[in-house]
Amino acid sequence: MHIKSILRMLSTILLIVSFFIFGCGFFSIIEKNPLRVSLSFLIPAVIGIAFFLAMAFVSRKDEKPFLTNKDGFLFVSLSWVFASALGALPFTISGYIPSYIDAFFETMSGFTTTGASILANIEALPRALLLWRATTHWLGGMGIVVLLVAVLPTLGFSAIRVMEAEAPGPSVDRITPHISSTAKTLWLIYLGLTIIEILLLVIGGMTLFDAICHAFATMATGGFSTKNTSLAHYDSGFIHWVITIFMFLAGTNFTLHYRLLSGNVRSILKDTEFKVYFMLFAVSSIIIAGDLFNSGVYRSFGESMRFSSFQVSSILTTTGFATTNFGEWPAVSQTILFFLMFIGGCAGSTGGGIKVIRVVVLFKMAVTEMRYVANPRGVYTIFLGNKALRKNVIYDIAALVFLYFAFFFLSVIVISFTGVDILTNVTAVIANLGNIGPGLGKVGPVFNYAFFPWWAKLWLSFAMLVGRLEVYTVLVLFSKKFWRSF
Amino acid sequence: MHIKSILRMLSTILLIVSFFIFGCGFFSIIEKNPLRVSLSFLIPAVIGIAFFLAMAFVSRKDEKPFLTNKDGFLFVSLSWVFASALGALPFTISGYIPSYIDAFFETMSGFTTTGASILANIEALPRALLLWRATTHWLGGMGIVVLLVAVLPTLGFSAIRVMEAEAPGPSVDRITPHISSTAKTLWLIYLGLTIIEILLLVIGGMTLFDAICHAFATMATGGFSTKNTSLAHYDSGFIHWVITIFMFLAGTNFTLHYRLLSGNVRSILKDTEFKVYFMLFAVSSIIIAGDLFNSGVYRSFGESMRFSSFQVSSILTTTGFATTNFGEWPAVSQTILFFLMFIGGCAGSTGGGIKVIRVVVLFKMAVTEMRYVANPRGVYTIFLGNKALRKNVIYDIAALVFLYFAFFFLSVIVISFTGVDILTNVTAVIANLGNIGPGLGKVGPVFNYAFFPWWAKLWLSFAMLVGRLEVYTVLVLFSKKFWRSF
Repeated sequence: MHIKSILRMLSTILLIVSFFIFGCGFFSIIEKNPLRVSLSFLIPAVIGIAFFLAMAFVSRKDEKPFLTNKDGFLFVSLSWVFASALGALPFTISGYIPSYIDAFFETMSGFTTTGASILANIEALPRALLLWRATTHWLGGMGIVVLLVAVLPTLGFSAIRVMEAEAPGPSVDRITPHISSTAKTLWLIYLGLTIIEILLLVIGGMTLFDAICHAFATMATGGFSTKNTSLAHYDSGFIHWVITIFMFLAGTNFTLHYRLLSGNVRSILKDTEFKVYFMLFAVSSIIIAGDLFNSGVYRSFGESMRFSSFQVSSILTTTGFATTNFGEWPAVSQTILFFLMFIGGCAGSTGGGIKVIRVVVLFKMAVTEMRYVANPRGVYTIFLGNKALRKNVIYDIAALVFLYFAFFFLSVIVISFTGVDILTNVTAVIANLGNIGPGLGKVGPVFNYAFFPWWAKLWLSFAMLVGRLEVYTVLVLFSKKFWRSF
Repeated sequence: MHIKSILRMLSTILLIVSFFIFGCGFFSIIEKNPLRVSLSFLIPAVIGIAFFLAMAFVSRKDEKPFLTNKDGFLFVSLSWVFASALGALPFTISGYIPSYIDAFFETMSGFTTTGASILANIEALPRALLLWRATTHWLGGMGIVVLLVAVLPTLGFSAIRVMEAEAPGPSVDRITPHISSTAKTLWLIYLGLTIIEILLLVIGGMTLFDAICHAFATMATGGFSTKNTSLAHYDSGFIHWVITIFMFLAGTNFTLHYRLLSGNVRSILKDTEFKVYFMLFAVSSIIIAGDLFNSGVYRSFGESMRFSSFQVSSILTTTGFATTNFGEWPAVSQTILFFLMFIGGCAGSTGGGIKVIRVVVLFKMAVTEMRYVANPRGVYTIFLGNKALRKNVIYDIAALVFLYFAFFFLSVIVISFTGVDILTNVTAVIANLGNIGPGLGKVGPVFNYAFFPWWAKLWLSFAMLVGRLEVYTVLVLFSKKFWRSF
């Protein structure tokens, strides 16, 4: 293990985080907040910078950080924990979230783009804190480590390994030959889409501040709003549709956005994962709209479509915004949303969950196996688009999904010790593990996570990280073998 | 496809069923029931015998039935549907379950050893009907097809293939070199354990009739009781413990019982599946007992243990008996029971569910994969006891479990159209798919399935069959490929 290298890299991550905390502190001063609020930003920023300088001082100048495969796992996992630990300070120092564990939960929920909150009255927070809250989403969405790879082209270690440990989906597509320029391209597309959404939201009537915060939360598939009633605050079909579409875009593989920009439209329409993702979105929206209209929840089918497609997009992409209390929707609608919670966005998107591609592969695996049972002498290959999948790849995916469910069941049993009912428990766990945010029952969209005891909040924070880093990166740290052969 | 052979085989299955229906009819006459009740048995028995004679008449005497692999799947699936269709007649003709779909649900629930009931007042039924209800359990527990293989030594086709399609677990262990004598041995052990349990229950104070019915339901891991309040009717620790132990034995791989009889005790203690099965039972019972005692549900820890271990044994083995309304137990207890519903008994037992062995294999798969992630150059083999598992076997198990969950989610969405809440829906589906019987919420142990609309009852009956025949045997019939290359 190269502790020094890991610490140096971690200090760079904290430097980036401090930079953004400092930005929010600057905003706080402009807003003429009380000194305590502004200091709550400046203190953590100084801590982060001091840590970086200390690490730079300790290590020789010409020494490049070196990370093995295992160091990479440790570094990525720790970088999220450290970033959350530092990022939680503004909430606690300012006094708006007095409990540090609550603040840590809120910040981890931000960075992992979960969007689960312990705040009952969000609007009571100063705007600078709300901006920081949205910024944690935005940084975590595309990945802080990916950002690091983007801004530091020569890291002197296998950046692709580290990026793979953080990036969602089975593998990182190399858009460009250099990993660093891939990372840069991804961040530029992300930035571009964010700016376009901000402009559209302002056109729709949002203030610039709210537009920025909501765009950050949308593009990261996070779900933190600046309003107590989330997007239900805005009674504008335009705003709802803009966010529906941008959540959908954020849940799409960013490689496809790159292809779109390169004019390669045909390959997008041929992409199996995208087709399934779109069908899940469209079919679920239509069924739920029918259910809502049929049950008389909304007067017109058009209105039903607006609310259903918003909520489907929000849950499927694991954003977690709400335009209404879907915890009171009829059975079919709630059940489909519950089901979508277990799927999540596309690989290579900012969305969480198991990812559409994995569900597609496992589904094909099961169907092929059925053919094999019917005719054991046949030879069956599983195709994804034109690409034949090796059995080992499918095997890996099956193992990951099983581990995901094993961790899910374990968490449900842990959370049951809080005494909550099963629906609240199950949906709280999947909402945090899948980085969605709100669940059903007592953690539905009009409630929050404040009532959980401190240990449950820590476990759920842990679940968020396990979900964001796709199980192995984090859980591998808890295997004896990992440490024995270090 | 060899339709004639399939029909001839089916007629033999119906002959066996008719034999048992006739037995219950004979009991009905002894009991001096009204003519309509006794006729309700004699009419279906005559239909079954007539069908057999007609088929025997149609086919030449020297012609042996021949079944291909695919014919086997079709035959096994149809034999359960036909047996349920015939077995439902006594309930409807006697007028005690006027709706034929309800009666079909009840009978399929019996044969598949699910134990889900649509009856609110069980004690209103004549004893002959209750006996028939328990007999469906007993026949289905070890498998009607297995019984057929046992009683007809020379079937002239690959009996092992057909038996594998019905038997629970990844593969049929050949206890003896001849498949027919293996089937006979299994049935003898089954019969022996049933008789011992009947004796013990009578000693515990049950009437002989109730002892027979409850022993049938226990050994088949079925769950139909002759009492409205299930086992809560008996306030006897002895009876509860006897049934707890016999449910546990019924959920154990019957190969182990055979080894026990052969004096090979050491190999039982080395059996990985049995060890995990025992630990699941013991650990869950202790945690739930602690939870019950701690919440003040029972006064003493001993009493808590009696109720917890009974319920854990009942749910883990997928029997579904209840000694109390566990739908009102505290959160931890309910959550652990909910979790156990997804596991089920051991392979080669009469229990349903995914089976302990598959969960163990997938767990090992996930852990091994984690090691591989930490050290990609290592070579890892998965062992079960001393046996190294081939990757293909694990792959098959993963595909089956994924298909199981895919069918589970599909069923949850289908059942959501009835408008029931998610907890009722999810547990109703798993309780039927896993052949357990009672779930939580509105299908908890003190409720029944009568309120579901007819189409939901048919779907749940279908789910019982899919679960009992372990997914592929039934679902393969719905693949285009199956019929195309027939």
